[in-house]
Amino acid sequence: MTETPEHLISLRRDLHRHPEPAWREFYTTARILEELDRIGVDDVFVGPDALASDARAGVPDADELGRWRERASEAGVDEQTLDRLEGGQTGAIAVLRRGEGPTVALRVDIDALPRTESTDPDHHPVAEEFRAEYDDAMHACGHDGHATIGVGVLEAIADSDFEGTLKVIFQPAEEVIGGGRAIAESGHLDDVDTLMAIHLGLGHPTGEVVAGVEGILAVSNLRAEFEGESAHAGGHPDRGRNAVQAMATAVQNLYAIPRHGEGMTRVNAGNVGGGSASNVIPESAYIDGEVRGETTRLMEYMRDRAETVIESAAEMHDCEVAIERTGQAPSADPDPSLRELIYEVTSGISGVDSRLRRAELGGSEDATYLMRRVQQRGGEATFVGIGTDHPGGHHTATFDIDEASIGIGVAALREAILTIADRDE
Amino acid sequence: MTETPEHLISLRRDLHRHPEPAWREFYTTARILEELDRIGVDDVFVGPDALASDARAGVPDADELGRWRERASEAGVDEQTLDRLEGGQTGAIAVLRRGEGPTVALRVDIDALPRTESTDPDHHPVAEEFRAEYDDAMHACGHDGHATIGVGVLEAIADSDFEGTLKVIFQPAEEVIGGGRAIAESGHLDDVDTLMAIHLGLGHPTGEVVAGVEGILAVSNLRAEFEGESAHAGGHPDRGRNAVQAMATAVQNLYAIPRHGEGMTRVNAGNVGGGSASNVIPESAYIDGEVRGETTRLMEYMRDRAETVIESAAEMHDCEVAIERTGQAPSADPDPSLRELIYEVTSGISGVDSRLRRAELGGSEDATYLMRRVQQRGGEATFVGIGTDHPGGHHTATFDIDEASIGIGVAALREAILTIADRDE
Amino acid sequence: MTETPEHLISLRRDLHRHPEPAWREFYTTARILEELDRIGVDDVFVGPDALASDARAGVPDADELGRWRERASEAGVDEQTLDRLEGGQTGAIAVLRRGEGPTVALRVDIDALPRTESTDPDHHPVAEEFRAEYDDAMHACGHDGHATIGVGVLEAIADSDFEGTLKVIFQPAEEVIGGGRAIAESGHLDDVDTLMAIHLGLGHPTGEVVAGVEGILAVSNLRAEFEGESAHAGGHPDRGRNAVQAMATAVQNLYAIPRHGEGMTRVNAGNVGGGSASNVIPESAYIDGEVRGETTRLMEYMRDRAETVIESAAEMHDCEVAIERTGQAPSADPDPSLRELIYEVTSGISGVDSRLRRAELGGSEDATYLMRRVQQRGGEATFVGIGTDHPGGHHTATFDIDEASIGIGVAALREAILTIADRDE
Amino acid sequence: MTETPEHLISLRRDLHRHPEPAWREFYTTARILEELDRIGVDDVFVGPDALASDARAGVPDADELGRWRERASEAGVDEQTLDRLEGGQTGAIAVLRRGEGPTVALRVDIDALPRTESTDPDHHPVAEEFRAEYDDAMHACGHDGHATIGVGVLEAIADSDFEGTLKVIFQPAEEVIGGGRAIAESGHLDDVDTLMAIHLGLGHPTGEVVAGVEGILAVSNLRAEFEGESAHAGGHPDRGRNAVQAMATAVQNLYAIPRHGEGMTRVNAGNVGGGSASNVIPESAYIDGEVRGETTRLMEYMRDRAETVIESAAEMHDCEVAIERTGQAPSADPDPSLRELIYEVTSGISGVDSRLRRAELGGSEDATYLMRRVQQRGGEATFVGIGTDHPGGHHTATFDIDEASIGIGVAALREAILTIADRDE
Repeated sequence: MTETPEHLISLRRDLHRHPEPAWREFYTTARILEELDRIGVDDVFVGPDALASDARAGVPDADELGRWRERASEAGVDEQTLDRLEGGQTGAIAVLRRGEGPTVALRVDIDALPRTESTDPDHHPVAEEFRAEYDDAMHACGHDGHATIGVGVLEAIADSDFEGTLKVIFQPAEEVIGGGRAIAESGHLDDVDTLMAIHLGLGHPTGEVVAGVEGILAVSNLRAEFEGESAHAGGHPDRGRNAVQAMATAVQNLYAIPRHGEGMTRVNAGNVGGGSASNVIPESAYIDGEVRGETTRLMEYMRDRAETVIESAAEMHDCEVAIERTGQAPSADPDPSLRELIYEVTSGISGVDSRLRRAELGGSEDATYLMRRVQQRGGEATFVGIGTDHPGGHHTATFDIDEASIGIGVAALREAILTIADRDE
Repeated sequence: MTETPEHLISLRRDLHRHPEPAWREFYTTARILEELDRIGVDDVFVGPDALASDARAGVPDADELGRWRERASEAGVDEQTLDRLEGGQTGAIAVLRRGEGPTVALRVDIDALPRTESTDPDHHPVAEEFRAEYDDAMHACGHDGHATIGVGVLEAIADSDFEGTLKVIFQPAEEVIGGGRAIAESGHLDDVDTLMAIHLGLGHPTGEVVAGVEGILAVSNLRAEFEGESAHAGGHPDRGRNAVQAMATAVQNLYAIPRHGEGMTRVNAGNVGGGSASNVIPESAYIDGEVRGETTRLMEYMRDRAETVIESAAEMHDCEVAIERTGQAPSADPDPSLRELIYEVTSGISGVDSRLRRAELGGSEDATYLMRRVQQRGGEATFVGIGTDHPGGHHTATFDIDEASIGIGVAALREAILTIADRDE
Repeated sequence: MTETPEHLISLRRDLHRHPEPAWREFYTTARILEELDRIGVDDVFVGPDALASDARAGVPDADELGRWRERASEAGVDEQTLDRLEGGQTGAIAVLRRGEGPTVALRVDIDALPRTESTDPDHHPVAEEFRAEYDDAMHACGHDGHATIGVGVLEAIADSDFEGTLKVIFQPAEEVIGGGRAIAESGHLDDVDTLMAIHLGLGHPTGEVVAGVEGILAVSNLRAEFEGESAHAGGHPDRGRNAVQAMATAVQNLYAIPRHGEGMTRVNAGNVGGGSASNVIPESAYIDGEVRGETTRLMEYMRDRAETVIESAAEMHDCEVAIERTGQAPSADPDPSLRELIYEVTSGISGVDSRLRRAELGGSEDATYLMRRVQQRGGEATFVGIGTDHPGGHHTATFDIDEASIGIGVAALREAILTIADRDE
Repeated sequence: MTETPEHLISLRRDLHRHPEPAWREFYTTARILEELDRIGVDDVFVGPDALASDARAGVPDADELGRWRERASEAGVDEQTLDRLEGGQTGAIAVLRRGEGPTVALRVDIDALPRTESTDPDHHPVAEEFRAEYDDAMHACGHDGHATIGVGVLEAIADSDFEGTLKVIFQPAEEVIGGGRAIAESGHLDDVDTLMAIHLGLGHPTGEVVAGVEGILAVSNLRAEFEGESAHAGGHPDRGRNAVQAMATAVQNLYAIPRHGEGMTRVNAGNVGGGSASNVIPESAYIDGEVRGETTRLMEYMRDRAETVIESAAEMHDCEVAIERTGQAPSADPDPSLRELIYEVTSGISGVDSRLRRAELGGSEDATYLMRRVQQRGGEATFVGIGTDHPGGHHTATFDIDEASIGIGVAALREAILTIADRDE
């Protein structure tokens, strides 16, 4: 069976120990750059050279960026590297040029989630001592593994007789649906013939490969900030304009937006807050939320209804509200012929004991921006699922990956890339 | 007209610059101790000597206490003083013994609110450059003035021919209804013949004195912590148990608890929050709230209904909830004869141009614990209102006091204390 | 002790058996007219002669009026009488002229509530077989007793040596706050020197009389009709515009309108409904509700907030809404001298064993329109409470009056009217 | 092109004029019996002979049944026929026996919806003067057309050389998911080899036929009755236990039940109400609602969550609640071979210009009970869609069918039945 090399396991655990949410991937990017240096690639693009910076979404404020840059600095990243990532322009694109042949791109995402990791002694990262070092972030979606697979594939192709150009895109800010468009519009995809994006897990066990993940929901993130007026809760409750009441009314009605007859929709008020002290009528409140749809149209239905709900809730409680769309991604589908190719080539990979042509994602991914870009310019794209046993669900405190799946992923993608290059000869 | 001495204005502004919420009054207490030292009192009780520590409510956790202790240290308070306030045992009781005579107590409260002060250039503390140095706290209820009046009265009586014992109680944690019971049960009130508690403002202009504030609402603070389960909001929203939905349902229904036929009630969800990232079903949420009633019985009606609402909301969304009663105070009424005495003696005070025998508070105050203690043991008590022009309402970002009212308050209370001592000869 | 004559008990029970809500008091008015005929009064005004018809509020539609007219007809009322009450112009004013003297008016209300009476065998009207004959209405507020007292007082004064003019006003539609203004503006009050309105019960036991009921809350009734769009709930829920969701959101937020620092407020969504079948997205819904305030200003605060809540809830769910103010009454207070007179004269009435100068109503009454009219034109007015033991609360299914209180009420009011006439000689 | 015969158009319009909701189809059944009589079938089963009466769901109370029986009587149905339908045992099964051959069943449903039909002069039934004669019911889902097709097919097969047995099932109470199980368990399906259930419209235009409608959502109807306690809304709102608040809280949270990651779900509070008068705290309220799921398991997820929401909402407002499951149907899928047969035979039908092998229903249908019964006993079943242009959506006030589709449906089903009989020879 395909083994995962020790140095990739070490890399993955180091990234896991340093989880960094969207646009804060300073340590992560620096660590990847070290690996690229070790492997020796032909080109590395970083910061403004890798991204259409204006197309970024969900970028935090300067204070927040400063705090994470500081952490990366304390973790040993040199200032010169940090300067290249100025203003949270994280991520990197590595290019291998190996003579004539097609341009193949692999996209992996690298950001973590703003949540706390479990401290349960049975949780593998706790037992093996690579739990997140920060309590406000966690690799709860396997992007530490994605980044590691990206490095592994580069290494494997560098050592092969591949002819063509390979681009590995280490994309930031997937979780806030913030980085996909910035990569798509960077120009780096405009000569790509074949794009593969990958994801570990998604309910598929170690040893299973999904050649074409479909049903990627379109998504829109939003932030609503309610402003009312404070007052003494005992003496003059009538003089307040209660922003928490407005927020609570909005939350109740957001989840109650009618389901749609034409397909799946989603809504979540994932982070909310408001008010100051128990004896003050709350003057401010906020919702960080998202809506999704099976198609871009269904997502827009949800977004429009959500905005109406929020605005009416504010009005009801005599508050003002500002709604910002903080990130957005369309839906996209794999190309059947590319899917078929991957289905075929993975049959011979040791460790792969189950292959699926297709499976539903049931979630969203801003890889769709990249897929659409390549497809619109005549290329082909797919979204490949690499199974991994995961004890807790994605985004939960006990999520973890089976490290064996890293080696399997590298082997499967190596085989696919070589076959694509051969095919086009 | 009675002038407010410069050194009292300086003291007030220094306290205003260093607002400290409940049980975090490290700087404030240290600053008061300096003044007591300057004045030279007979006894000073601090920390466990001033409080029945077990009867404290709303004490924050060690991290939070540590953070504020650190701030006080940075503001120049020596470690020895901070050690005396170990674990947030803030506040102080000062005693002047001047021969035979009654024991008279004055209670002033010293804590700030956890809210941000206005940065409007027209806001007096901004214009005069004594705005709060921290953005997470503010003296938005005049307790900086109360503490200053307490110091001023001590000074004035120390210089007078008063015969008897004067205790000035600098009480912590009034805003969370957390300190009153701890003072009441400390033993220091058990020999008090006459107690006066004071409050600035309350809608009364500078120059007005209220001899007996009544209608003090009974209050109960509560904290509810909801625990659900997180899940990926795109892939498996059904697997979550949504703590934010539970919280929002509770908020909606808390405000909707039926009004009571027998009198005033209040309810507020003053500070709420929940969840982590927009794409994670929220697994936790909280409410910091309060209920009030015109009588203790009406407060209990509200509290019982509130707890039912919160528990049912949790159950509805398959979450657990823990409810803690974080502070509580009964209602209490002034003694008419003491009220009359104060009404009479304030007639001759320069600067007092309006006197009221009674007025409604419409809010709550844990001074009621102290008043009840003294009354139950045969003493008399009242709650005195010292008018002050205040541009913004109590608890709002633009609240401020008219510093002229500090001098008026000192003069009125000095006169009252001397009259009480004479009367009982 | 004062006994209640048999014929008044019979009358009260007959009215109880025929409860008629606002503007539907066909049988009731006819039955009163019979009594007036028996007694022999000088003038009787009915229909448009008794009311400023344009000032009526809460008049039901023609179908509903027709249905109740039909019931009255089936119960034996002749068509000629019914024609005089055309369009629901119910109620009557009876006048006794007895030479020179003041004009004294007594106002009693005659309508029932749209609710079902208890069938409990222990409920007195069930046990004694005079329970309501209709299941959609009930005398759950004692107006059957009020009307009976009005008849009893007329009879008593007709037999006395009273000198002056007595007007007994049998007012319709009090429960919907719909008739008071129409009587006030009819002209019949413009020469009244003294007005007494009465109410049985209000928590006061048989034998207790309240000379001046105060704290009558100002009230505004409103009806909101939501219009959305229906759709198949399985196939196309997104195509609906859900009026029931709008209504439910409004209800939740109506009860949550902030309490007011300056006094009592009330709100109730007393009757609601919406939708058609379980598999159709509801296209319409309604709320019949009310708001109240300790003063007219506080009622207006509640009304304005309620209208904002309702409009925003409609908008939130993409529905239209029409809000109608269906009835309204101001607050009003008794004249102290008249209150004192009644307090005095009732001391000698057999059966009266407790007298109160004042008591709080805690509810609303459109008698305030009549009181204000008389007071504005220089007359005096009060609202008299006649105690009666009542097993269930007002407006509940088991409400009933103690018939002994009818006799006591008649005797007390006779004495008061005779004293007023004597006083002014 | 296939024409719809005049007598079928007349029949359809007569049924349209007399819409009768679930278990109230007295006129409808009688009218169908007349047609069966005219055609001359071999057996007719009615009332308890057609239904497993105990398995009925959603049967209204005796008063309601009596009211509709009375209407049917007034519309000319004789008492003898009405007696056969005693207690709302409506519907009929007609059997043609034509020698050796397979037993083929056709199921059509006959009930209307409890909603008001449009009065728009452009609405075809208004223009052509066959709008519903009652304002509380409407054929808004085309079952008038279904019943007519059932009659037309019987007639067509009776006139053909069909060999075998044909059963046409005129099923009551489909809209409340109340009749399917009672037919399935009647025994009449136990010898059926092939079952076809049909539906007009569903978004398919006239001329389109769907051989196998799939994605039929499992459904569960429920009725919740809340009981609280009334009180005077002005005097003692605290003494009430507000059933309307409980209902509104439930409605808000029912629509907010989390969407499910594995497939479509639905929820609707289709008919709600509560309370009595605006000044009485509401003591009772109800919800008639439904939940659906793409699979029976998803429907059960929704049902369990819905029941938790309702129970917690009652508890929150100190009310009792009784929840009744008033009807339920599983999901079911067409047999592919039968679907193929129908797809093939309809190619030659004049008027059919578009054929689909499959399409999603997106709604529910208790025909699934019948399909499952036949399939479990070794038979085959499908659900056939007959396109019809319909101006308004299903269940809306302006729904109508294109009468041309009746003739097309009859022709298509005739052809299918003859082919099935031939095939099995």
